[in-house]
Amino acid sequence: MAEFTLFTNPMSRGQIARWALHEAGADYETVLVEWEAKPQAFLNANPMGKVPTLIHHRAGGDKVVTECAAICLYLADVLPECGLAPDDDERADYLRWTFFAAGPVEQAVTARSFGFDPQEPRQQGMAGWGSYARTVDALAGHLGHNVFVCGDRFTMADVYVGSHVDWGVGFKSLPDRPEFTAYLERIRARPAYQAAKAIDMALIAEMQK
Amino acid sequence: MAEFTLFTNPMSRGQIARWALHEAGADYETVLVEWEAKPQAFLNANPMGKVPTLIHHRAGGDKVVTECAAICLYLADVLPECGLAPDDDERADYLRWTFFAAGPVEQAVTARSFGFDPQEPRQQGMAGWGSYARTVDALAGHLGHNVFVCGDRFTMADVYVGSHVDWGVGFKSLPDRPEFTAYLERIRARPAYQAAKAIDMALIAEMQK
Repeated sequence: MAEFTLFTNPMSRGQIARWALHEAGADYETVLVEWEAKPQAFLNANPMGKVPTLIHHRAGGDKVVTECAAICLYLADVLPECGLAPDDDERADYLRWTFFAAGPVEQAVTARSFGFDPQEPRQQGMAGWGSYARTVDALAGHLGHNVFVCGDRFTMADVYVGSHVDWGVGFKSLPDRPEFTAYLERIRARPAYQAAKAIDMALIAEMQK
Repeated sequence: MAEFTLFTNPMSRGQIARWALHEAGADYETVLVEWEAKPQAFLNANPMGKVPTLIHHRAGGDKVVTECAAICLYLADVLPECGLAPDDDERADYLRWTFFAAGPVEQAVTARSFGFDPQEPRQQGMAGWGSYARTVDALAGHLGHNVFVCGDRFTMADVYVGSHVDWGVGFKSLPDRPEFTAYLERIRARPAYQAAKAIDMALIAEMQK
């Protein structure tokens, strides 16, 4: 049995988890989840019924990890030989920008896709992301001044933050600002990115036959 | 100079960061940020202009941490003597539920406060939190079966998840389900919770004079 089981669907954020598994060099197997017939083992592990869901088969018992960002950080921590967890100098940026993507960026993009963007100061104060423009500016500002999220070195934070930028620019939910496109060139050059995407693209092609 | 500087406002989520600082036993000073006159040092550190923002004055240079959840996890990591970072058995729940609170719970509550709750399957698929009801059920389900986020032991994840429950039940953005009220009794009994809240309550009383 592989060390990890990934419940995923190729047309989902499960692509983020697969990329993280490849970056971490993890030994994993994939279980495909169809929207109409979700396996019971999957629903038991994640009552939200959301992919990706990762099971870590450990000696002490199975561990379940949900939420893409948690899956990324978990893999970096439990497979330290991949060298993608932060050192003491990188930790602040690593956590800050991972949570910035999981919170404000996710919220700004989703709210806007549902037709909502806070305009008045009172609304902007209530919304953790302030406004779409402020959120995009803050992210672009950081990526414009750094090669990767934590500076010069690629870390697991780039899998999560990079996936947001990749997805956002691809689906036009984020603008194709030069800071984003230059960063995307760097992360798309990762062999693990290419290997993981090739698997999901092949699965999507198979589903569409 | 203290090891940490906390930019905060007592009437904000800065209360979460202060509780985390007290749980971690951190040596910190507070700089109060007024909405109308934000200090330049604060805006330089966080272009989003959001509190709380934490500065860690390290030998190698200052580090900035924003996003409440990042601040909590950062403090647990850099002050390991507080014993609030997870062990290998706790890591999955620690990351999973911290990101669940920072993502789905935050989004479900905020979207609902702005009058939006996904109803149709297509909308629920687009929304990372599915729906308000599913998100609340998942969180209550976990807290109903565990003393703390990671099982029997209080960790830094409880500062963040617990603050969401505390805030949500207090402001009625989360229902006062028995799983939540029992959990709140446990976390409000923490001496660090009481010490931190006493400071912010005194500051609020001072502001309202």
